[in-house]
Amino acid sequence: MTPRYSGIIPPMITPLTGRDSLDIDGLEKLVERLIDGGVSGIFALGTTGEAPSLSYRLRRELVEHTCRFVNGRVPVLVGITDTSLVESARFAGEISDFRVEAVVTSAPFYFPAGQPELREYLEELLPELSLPLILYNMPSLTKISFHRDVVEWALDQEKVIGLKDSSGDLTYFKKMVKLAAEKRPDWPLLVGPEELLAEAVLAGGHGGVNGGANLNPRLYVDLYEASARGDWETARDLSAKVLELSNRIYHVGQHGSAIIKGLKCALSIVGICDDFMAAPFHRFHESERKIIESHLEELGIS
Amino acid sequence: MTPRYSGIIPPMITPLTGRDSLDIDGLEKLVERLIDGGVSGIFALGTTGEAPSLSYRLRRELVEHTCRFVNGRVPVLVGITDTSLVESARFAGEISDFRVEAVVTSAPFYFPAGQPELREYLEELLPELSLPLILYNMPSLTKISFHRDVVEWALDQEKVIGLKDSSGDLTYFKKMVKLAAEKRPDWPLLVGPEELLAEAVLAGGHGGVNGGANLNPRLYVDLYEASARGDWETARDLSAKVLELSNRIYHVGQHGSAIIKGLKCALSIVGICDDFMAAPFHRFHESERKIIESHLEELGIS
Amino acid sequence: MTPRYSGIIPPMITPLTGRDSLDIDGLEKLVERLIDGGVSGIFALGTTGEAPSLSYRLRRELVEHTCRFVNGRVPVLVGITDTSLVESARFAGEISDFRVEAVVTSAPFYFPAGQPELREYLEELLPELSLPLILYNMPSLTKISFHRDVVEWALDQEKVIGLKDSSGDLTYFKKMVKLAAEKRPDWPLLVGPEELLAEAVLAGGHGGVNGGANLNPRLYVDLYEASARGDWETARDLSAKVLELSNRIYHVGQHGSAIIKGLKCALSIVGICDDFMAAPFHRFHESERKIIESHLEELGIS
Amino acid sequence: MTPRYSGIIPPMITPLTGRDSLDIDGLEKLVERLIDGGVSGIFALGTTGEAPSLSYRLRRELVEHTCRFVNGRVPVLVGITDTSLVESARFAGEISDFRVEAVVTSAPFYFPAGQPELREYLEELLPELSLPLILYNMPSLTKISFHRDVVEWALDQEKVIGLKDSSGDLTYFKKMVKLAAEKRPDWPLLVGPEELLAEAVLAGGHGGVNGGANLNPRLYVDLYEASARGDWETARDLSAKVLELSNRIYHVGQHGSAIIKGLKCALSIVGICDDFMAAPFHRFHESERKIIESHLEELGIS
Repeated sequence: MTPRYSGIIPPMITPLTGRDSLDIDGLEKLVERLIDGGVSGIFALGTTGEAPSLSYRLRRELVEHTCRFVNGRVPVLVGITDTSLVESARFAGEISDFRVEAVVTSAPFYFPAGQPELREYLEELLPELSLPLILYNMPSLTKISFHRDVVEWALDQEKVIGLKDSSGDLTYFKKMVKLAAEKRPDWPLLVGPEELLAEAVLAGGHGGVNGGANLNPRLYVDLYEASARGDWETARDLSAKVLELSNRIYHVGQHGSAIIKGLKCALSIVGICDDFMAAPFHRFHESERKIIESHLEELGIS
Repeated sequence: MTPRYSGIIPPMITPLTGRDSLDIDGLEKLVERLIDGGVSGIFALGTTGEAPSLSYRLRRELVEHTCRFVNGRVPVLVGITDTSLVESARFAGEISDFRVEAVVTSAPFYFPAGQPELREYLEELLPELSLPLILYNMPSLTKISFHRDVVEWALDQEKVIGLKDSSGDLTYFKKMVKLAAEKRPDWPLLVGPEELLAEAVLAGGHGGVNGGANLNPRLYVDLYEASARGDWETARDLSAKVLELSNRIYHVGQHGSAIIKGLKCALSIVGICDDFMAAPFHRFHESERKIIESHLEELGIS
Repeated sequence: MTPRYSGIIPPMITPLTGRDSLDIDGLEKLVERLIDGGVSGIFALGTTGEAPSLSYRLRRELVEHTCRFVNGRVPVLVGITDTSLVESARFAGEISDFRVEAVVTSAPFYFPAGQPELREYLEELLPELSLPLILYNMPSLTKISFHRDVVEWALDQEKVIGLKDSSGDLTYFKKMVKLAAEKRPDWPLLVGPEELLAEAVLAGGHGGVNGGANLNPRLYVDLYEASARGDWETARDLSAKVLELSNRIYHVGQHGSAIIKGLKCALSIVGICDDFMAAPFHRFHESERKIIESHLEELGIS
Repeated sequence: MTPRYSGIIPPMITPLTGRDSLDIDGLEKLVERLIDGGVSGIFALGTTGEAPSLSYRLRRELVEHTCRFVNGRVPVLVGITDTSLVESARFAGEISDFRVEAVVTSAPFYFPAGQPELREYLEELLPELSLPLILYNMPSLTKISFHRDVVEWALDQEKVIGLKDSSGDLTYFKKMVKLAAEKRPDWPLLVGPEELLAEAVLAGGHGGVNGGANLNPRLYVDLYEASARGDWETARDLSAKVLELSNRIYHVGQHGSAIIKGLKCALSIVGICDDFMAAPFHRFHESERKIIESHLEELGIS
């Protein structure tokens, strides 16, 4: 039984032309690039999408246009993570006008909640949602991980339909795969860090929500498929390519923001969209852009 | 030269009756309690005010009623911290209809910014504000501290008019006092943790933004005044009482949320306002309430 | 070209009967159990061996007896990590009387060194050693990871002959595999966390230094071999068993010490050795021992 | 009742001429400088003394010569912190041949112990010691703080005679002052970070174990005395000078080791001792030395 959300579901970057203005043409080109690349869905307004840095007005606009461009060809998932449950629920309601299939939430991330509080938070949020919910484990930014007890509870909630894990901790991921496999074989377990995609799938995971798929969706789809069919030789080769992309695009500049900056810069170079970044970040300077340019050539991406 | 915002400026808790409903009567009683207690101002929508957990609708409502109840008797400062610069600026604009004297911002707190990015963030935010800005250093929750360079830059900005430091690091506080004293003797340096109020004032600071002042404003005002006039004997005695209050009210229950829970519970017991808490937190259970009740008696607070 | 140190090299627990007395009979039984189980080597005095908690007198005694019992049947590796380079070097000299094949060092762990300092530390240590050196990456306890630059430097040192990575970060591990494969195909890359053994080998690693192999060496050897020959079906089944062992033995009790306590308790139950633990830890109480007992039964280990 | 160990007790740097050789002449000059400066005691083999980086042979030699040079004029305290209880106890026994008044221990620092384990560790260590014990709270390097329960237990042990707190958390310090004042008015509470010396004494503490007193002992003694007699005006001025010294000597170079490096470099410039540092650190380069030189001139230290 293959879960509905298996394969590659890129955490789509948000193309911007300014602090509060969407690059609509860029968005259209990006959506086409992703679907052409064989992705199984699109995840808008995650971390890679700079969601917390965007106004709610723009977030809504992004969802509207994304759904219009996608036009039902693949499922659209939308992040609703906020520090305020009321705002999360409000936004989830707002976007239910569009063709969104599920919403995605991480933990509220200002106050570090305890595990019982995290469960209660989800218990309180669920009835407010008209769409199904996917959990998004992102402890490095939210200060808290979804522990076993919370995930076990979630597995009993019909409305919760999967887990995306961006912890980078494959041991955690494998434990969650095991937990879910027993109770809900329909539950997708999706891995965030692309460097772990092959291993996550081989270990029973169902796919990846990998930033690099914005740039080269086909590579990630191929890697997923090789891993899913157990073709480890191919998976190993493609995995090396993913590592190469990561090494060349995500580590120009020193800061944690280098991943999103690198992706947006690369997408701008290949003519997809503007590389404007929402505060507190800024697009690369010309010198860094030149490096990305030469790295793209070496990677054969255009 | 005494800065305008010296003395005790409580980080007001937000009285709630439900997830998205304000306890307006409670708010009025709380405002009167604070002003009766001699506070120099009121800081709404800080961490103690659970700001990030509240809807923007409610935040606006809170500011409106607070300003109405205060009615110009003391300055009202309002927190506008958000992960989105556009939302921060939007909310700052929205509340400029009311009698707010200054806005307060911490760092954007989802993505950990670097120091240059933090400065650029403030540079970009400032022109959007019609009110002066106070900086709020809260590294334990925002993942980043305002380093010397950023504060030095801020001292050159006329519109930035002070710093509240909740780092708990008195060495940092003292360094900032020294920095500000040279350039901007009008700049208030306010300390967050109440356990450090006396020492912070003796070291040249100008006051405190102390949660306990919600409950017993007079104690904190007296401690501030004793410290400010160098009456260390009195300051030591009052400081011991503050420590006692902290020991008895903030450590019932194990979690980081115990401070706000304890304050709200105590204010509910003494008849000021409801103790409802915004998600992801919950009010104390009856057993914990009983403990707070007996501790209040021991502290002689009613 | 298979590196000399491939396969399973258990980080041997140190059987004790008291604070400074070795359980020599227990050690002999344990060594036989490991060699019978097919291990490729024995790593004495690692984290699982409680090395930093032991006196140098006892450490020397342990090495002497271990080498005597092993009697050349498999290589013996010995941890020499210390906060003092002089003590590390001294101990390395002392044990060179015995049949030790290589020494293993992590970073000095009191002061957190920078990367250049870590490299210089190794540069200064190497000439003091008469035996080859394996690096041991253990950032959660030593406060510092071996970054790419340091590992690249190490790959140029003939005397450095491998890397054990206990970071739990498979992305790091894969990057190091790639780095080593280009320069030193003879360099073993060994993974610490047993939950990642299969994936680490599939990704090009050469084996595991896995605590659980103290208890059930054959399981880990079989898993390594299945992974090494690309038999992913078998590897997946055995991997599930490893996860099961980890779930049942390492999480009785709440503390970080639960892993070593669980292993020692289990080995005591199956009659191998005493479960005395060096300060600051203590063996399990009777109630926890009962739980381990029943878990061992469920796991079919005797 | 003034505790025996009040005032300034410098954490003496360890003068070295090489990896395992003591600068005995430098040590003699340093001891004279400290005693001339009015210190109340000398603490050898703390963090500032690079204790964990030194061989036990050299540690013993240092204690021997220090006691000989001090010759009973002030108490000598000696750090015995180790990851191995047996080694700690052994070293404490070894130095009891010399005129040492008390030993000092932090928590074992490789494995992070829990609070009950920390208490049990001390319970097990105490009977092994022939000298009284002072606790040393250093959570940033040992991974664990002495919590209230452990300190309460320690206050009941006759052999435990004080607490040095290097947490930098003045709130913690004040709570411990209060705890000790009730039970053991003879217990000194000494503060590590010199930037907090005045405030710590004003809050009821008994002195400081401040690195800068290696360089300018008189300044710290004067500051302690002004604070102890409640002369806040003088304390504030001297406190500013301490901050100035800290700013100019401890922040040349970027690393955590900059404090010890700066101190040793400055002491070398003023002709006291060699600035050799034990691995993993190294003395400053010439360019950094020049900066320290000019800063010393500005500070008027020679």
